Amino acid sequence: MLEIKVVALAGGVGGAKLVDGLSRILPSDSLTVIVNTGDDFDHLGLRICPDLDTVCYMLAGLANLTTGWGRKAETWNALQSLAELGGPAWFRLGDRDLGTHLERTRLLAKGYALSEVTQKFCEVWGIAPHVLPMSDDQIPTMVQSDEGELAFQDYFVKRKCQPRVTGFYFAGIESAQPSPGVQQSLSEAEIVLICPSNPWVSIDPILAVPGIKEVILDRAKRKQVIAVSPIIAGAAVKGPAAKMYLEMGINPSAASVAQHYGSQDMGGLLNGYVFDHLDAGQDQEITGLGLATLVTNTLMKTLEDRMRLAEQVIDFGKKLLDGNV
Amino acid sequence: MLEIKVVALAGGVGGAKLVDGLSRILPSDSLTVIVNTGDDFDHLGLRICPDLDTVCYMLAGLANLTTGWGRKAETWNALQSLAELGGPAWFRLGDRDLGTHLERTRLLAKGYALSEVTQKFCEVWGIAPHVLPMSDDQIPTMVQSDEGELAFQDYFVKRKCQPRVTGFYFAGIESAQPSPGVQQSLSEAEIVLICPSNPWVSIDPILAVPGIKEVILDRAKRKQVIAVSPIIAGAAVKGPAAKMYLEMGINPSAASVAQHYGSQDMGGLLNGYVFDHLDAGQDQEITGLGLATLVTNTLMKTLEDRMRLAEQVIDFGKKLLDGNV
Repeated sequence: MLEIKVVALAGGVGGAKLVDGLSRILPSDSLTVIVNTGDDFDHLGLRICPDLDTVCYMLAGLANLTTGWGRKAETWNALQSLAELGGPAWFRLGDRDLGTHLERTRLLAKGYALSEVTQKFCEVWGIAPHVLPMSDDQIPTMVQSDEGELAFQDYFVKRKCQPRVTGFYFAGIESAQPSPGVQQSLSEAEIVLICPSNPWVSIDPILAVPGIKEVILDRAKRKQVIAVSPIIAGAAVKGPAAKMYLEMGINPSAASVAQHYGSQDMGGLLNGYVFDHLDAGQDQEITGLGLATLVTNTLMKTLEDRMRLAEQVIDFGKKLLDGNV
Repeated sequence: MLEIKVVALAGGVGGAKLVDGLSRILPSDSLTVIVNTGDDFDHLGLRICPDLDTVCYMLAGLANLTTGWGRKAETWNALQSLAELGGPAWFRLGDRDLGTHLERTRLLAKGYALSEVTQKFCEVWGIAPHVLPMSDDQIPTMVQSDEGELAFQDYFVKRKCQPRVTGFYFAGIESAQPSPGVQQSLSEAEIVLICPSNPWVSIDPILAVPGIKEVILDRAKRKQVIAVSPIIAGAAVKGPAAKMYLEMGINPSAASVAQHYGSQDMGGLLNGYVFDHLDAGQDQEITGLGLATLVTNTLMKTLEDRMRLAEQVIDFGKKLLDGNV
């Protein structure tokens, strides 16, 4: 096992897959995952945390790998019963999944913080890495679009990402704080890994929490910040990332994502960048941003893919740390 | 079909069975059911109305006749998932049943009254009789016991009726009101039928809502008030009624229930009383209370039993109305 401190920033299924690969090749104390909570919302009186659940279900071996969300061996009887009564069934909540939301909501109502609830669930589910919500505060991602402002799940699930986006903001983020352990894990990290998640709505919300980007940028301790492109051959593996880039007037490409994280606005966050063989032609453009690059197969179809990519990324990070790139 | 206005007061499964029988022999406009809501409680953030659901599921053909509560063809995945996370699983909530509670809770939070929600659900479920909660106000039944005061479901489900009861009260009943339609249906009723439900915790709460007993007692319009004994041969068919009578120092018998409803405290509510052949020996005692009696087979094991008992009870009521008893 590799003795190295790694912190991964993750959104939904792409991030969850790479994190799963990492969890299988790193000692459990080595890995911390900071998860986007901008997608979280209240629905049917329940607090629902889609990215947190996607990551935890994946790490627990409970994930539905076909849908990319929800649980395996799921049933849908509660939602069917609710739909028969005319209730809102647009957000697909399976029965086993509902148990998670009911218990989380109950504990939050008792005064526990989301990070405490998450830690408890991870213990029950036998999840070895530290999984931290980016914040215990609610910071709902708002989508600005040609149809006006939409709450994220209204845009993402109810409207199926059809409105054309013009921007995003994270409501209340000015006064939000990172959840306990987030800043310490980042300050101790040797590799900070930005997973192949949606830059606009999965990673940007994490980086926007006051104090997170600052700790990543603080290089008093040697640290390599590496991103894995969620864009392969101009398309997102899953989700609306490429569509968002187009609507924002940006060519959706591996290089665009590298520019996104490497921009002035981000303070030149990245050291290294991992992207797919299919985009090898962009290597010069990306190295031109001052980034070390690793060109490999980034598509994770199987468990072996996840472990191989995780190994390659960590190996790349170690070489960067050793100054061998 | 019999053209007669009937209002039934019902609690859980015994009441639901007789109401189901009535619904099959009366025109839909003839029957109104007023259901106990003293058992209602908030659990896992959901408003749960056990008696209302038992009655509605029964009338809709959705009831689990084996358990006497919950829905048929039920699954338990949400509760299992919640229990795995350490959540409270003592109150058994099935997945299909959860859909009901989620939608009811959502509508109540939007400002609908329980009676409005119930009416909507009855329409969806194709329930012909008018089903009315006794009140739109929350009137939680409290059980006084040798272990102190217990919320009803804590006594009934969590503690499995083990504490010895010393009394009951209905919190907040002084300021509660009957739900819309309750008083009008009672004032128009020709037969008011007290179903074979627990007198202490299913029927007494209904009768204790200010304005309900008063309308029943108002005989300006000719009206017969008939109760069906929930006690057969000293035992309750289901539930703790007999145990409660014993603990309250009263012999659990058909006659005791007749005395209960016929007492001074109740204002001499009853005209007629229906009880089982097995208790025929108590007929003199019961007629001695000034009640007309019908001795028959009151145990409802089959659908035919429910319909037969319903027919006999209505026939008995008509004879009383006609002065033929």
